[in-house]
Amino acid sequence: MKILLVGAGGVGDAFAKIIARRSFYEHVIVSDYDLGRAERTIEAIRARHGADVAGRFSAAQIDASDPDRVAAVAREHGATHVMNAVEPKFVPTIFAGALAANADYLDMAMSLSEPHPTDPHAQTGVKLGDDQFAQAGDWETAGRLALVGMGVEPGLSDVFARYASDHLFSEIDELGTRDGANLVVRDEAGNEIFAPSFSIWTTIEECLNPPVIFEKDKGWFTTAPFSEPEMFDFPEGIGPVECVNVEHEEVLLMPRWLDAKRVTFKYGLGEEFIGVLKTLHLLGLDSVDPVRVRSAAGPAMVAPRDVVAACLPDPATIGPRMTGKTCAGVWVTGTGLDGAAREVYLYHVADNEWTMAEYDAQCVVWQTALNPVIALELLAAGAWGGIGVLGPEAFDAKAFLDLMASPESEGGYGQPWGLQDRL
Amino acid sequence: MKILLVGAGGVGDAFAKIIARRSFYEHVIVSDYDLGRAERTIEAIRARHGADVAGRFSAAQIDASDPDRVAAVAREHGATHVMNAVEPKFVPTIFAGALAANADYLDMAMSLSEPHPTDPHAQTGVKLGDDQFAQAGDWETAGRLALVGMGVEPGLSDVFARYASDHLFSEIDELGTRDGANLVVRDEAGNEIFAPSFSIWTTIEECLNPPVIFEKDKGWFTTAPFSEPEMFDFPEGIGPVECVNVEHEEVLLMPRWLDAKRVTFKYGLGEEFIGVLKTLHLLGLDSVDPVRVRSAAGPAMVAPRDVVAACLPDPATIGPRMTGKTCAGVWVTGTGLDGAAREVYLYHVADNEWTMAEYDAQCVVWQTALNPVIALELLAAGAWGGIGVLGPEAFDAKAFLDLMASPESEGGYGQPWGLQDRL
Repeated sequence: MKILLVGAGGVGDAFAKIIARRSFYEHVIVSDYDLGRAERTIEAIRARHGADVAGRFSAAQIDASDPDRVAAVAREHGATHVMNAVEPKFVPTIFAGALAANADYLDMAMSLSEPHPTDPHAQTGVKLGDDQFAQAGDWETAGRLALVGMGVEPGLSDVFARYASDHLFSEIDELGTRDGANLVVRDEAGNEIFAPSFSIWTTIEECLNPPVIFEKDKGWFTTAPFSEPEMFDFPEGIGPVECVNVEHEEVLLMPRWLDAKRVTFKYGLGEEFIGVLKTLHLLGLDSVDPVRVRSAAGPAMVAPRDVVAACLPDPATIGPRMTGKTCAGVWVTGTGLDGAAREVYLYHVADNEWTMAEYDAQCVVWQTALNPVIALELLAAGAWGGIGVLGPEAFDAKAFLDLMASPESEGGYGQPWGLQDRL
Repeated sequence: MKILLVGAGGVGDAFAKIIARRSFYEHVIVSDYDLGRAERTIEAIRARHGADVAGRFSAAQIDASDPDRVAAVAREHGATHVMNAVEPKFVPTIFAGALAANADYLDMAMSLSEPHPTDPHAQTGVKLGDDQFAQAGDWETAGRLALVGMGVEPGLSDVFARYASDHLFSEIDELGTRDGANLVVRDEAGNEIFAPSFSIWTTIEECLNPPVIFEKDKGWFTTAPFSEPEMFDFPEGIGPVECVNVEHEEVLLMPRWLDAKRVTFKYGLGEEFIGVLKTLHLLGLDSVDPVRVRSAAGPAMVAPRDVVAACLPDPATIGPRMTGKTCAGVWVTGTGLDGAAREVYLYHVADNEWTMAEYDAQCVVWQTALNPVIALELLAAGAWGGIGVLGPEAFDAKAFLDLMASPESEGGYGQPWGLQDRL
């Protein structure tokens, strides 16, 4: 297995640092638009693991917006797998480039949606992943696999849903992905500051899009942003966090393979963050259309959303100043195998101080990057396999969770997951 | 009386439109950095009142940041009074220019404050108006009057406070200026939009400065922004609005002439607007320090606060799309003339539809501009007079309120004010 990693930003960098501790592959090409960034990731691996491990990595420059460039880099290095770790707007070009190079493909976010032109808060328009599933026939014909949505959410959440469906429930009422955290970032003086752990640009995009919901008798439909707020009690000391509906891939993926009456995604943004996003929208500061603003060098045309991002700390830099845990999981309700009502929460928690110490990676990006590494290891071992465009729930969940949970000394990843019975 | 009006923005334009209906002066020189803006104001007067009235106005270009330029324009036109109607940052230069030209001076906002360097939320630093009061001796020596803070708030509020002190109370516990509104702005489709009726730039400045409070046994002190929230019930259908402490001139002016145990200013920003200002501060979007942002023309350095202003509708343009009323007044508690506890609210309300129809001016700027016109008429008539740096509470309040309230047919301004007994 030769893996072309596209993108050495937060998640790509963490992917490389995680896979550096495994040995199931032959080589990883770390590519980025900025070659220096790819080289820095490999330098970090060299510093921690030495020249032998670093020798299994090489750096390359890539333009992810050009499918021909992606295919050329993949062919040049004989990549068997293309691992997409850049912003979702580049999904179409990397997806096409991988197929053109006859490589398998993985991503952690799917092709973008477009709201319904006249009724955006009730009906779907172009849905997340629609463009990719429309090309499933091409991938099947080529005999290649595109494993889409294989991060933590989507990704691990879909694995949990498949596990619940196979091993815990005879009938499922709701598959509800629920994500929450108690992360706190402090400035040098120790005061709490507002510093989102993920790109504010992407967060605005996903939170202000109309959230999508699936119901078996109704199909996919949308609501207004921030709908159906609920307090969800997260485990391991995180506690209750206000969660709201957010557009997310799980809702589009799970119903394709799993049987559930309702599929939802709620993000534990918390009251403060929801208020911030609503205010940015109210003032038009979420807009990507440039406005005219005075500057010392004369009038400038800038996108308000870029200005918001420029005012906040770079999420890639806040790891050392952050404490707390992030939790990803699926809350499942329905009928258990014994015929009685059942309600469970399947989850995985990452602690920032631990991921910083062990991997020099912030916990949110580390938790995202962990799962495609495990999936690639299962594909390399033949435990997972398939052709076409498939989500994580199309594969054996137990194999994934066992490899993830078993200790590193026994060849696993040493990442236990939790099951809370809530009834 | 020859009046040099400095600034033909929202308030300056409304001042000219109000004084056009009076005849106590000889001439008004409407000056602005942008001569075209001054000319547009005079054209509007010509269109409504004809050539005779417009003949009492002339336009001039002025640079308010240069005291010599201000003095030169004042001398050239033989101005007896300089009326400052621009942003408070120009107070020092216009103030100096008027004295140099041996003219009397009026403004509606005073020289700016600077927070205490180490303890800003408890102790005052440089207070509003300090720079002007420090020069009181020069004005006294020259025998000239600087009537400072003579808009609506400060201005009419200070007149109300003097009236309460002279005619309603034997002892005052608190002079609490309270300002609230129920203004709503709609887009072309009729949907409510977020559109502050006053410059967001100035509003951020005044609301994020530490608010100042006066207590007789403690002197002036400050608190954290948005402190001591209270619901205040405004008259004439406006109803309850959440008010918080804001730094304002009344608190610095009233204790110099009036005897009260406590002097406060609370602004009815409302919950939504307070939330917006807090969020802007949390994200650093209130900052005036430029940040680096990408643009199509390459990286630009822009001040986040300028971007916020650029995203919102220009307050000068929202008058036709706005409905509702704005209320300015003073809530006074203490002991009445009969020795019993007394609590009153003295107020004036402006209705936007009426000010737009009568003056083609938005109600907030119109209400601000009304009061210096009345003050100038009292000075012209000799009913008010004085030398040095004086606030509105240094003059006879009854003369002011009588002229304001009496019908236009009887030579007044036809603007009744209200007195609510609240005990």
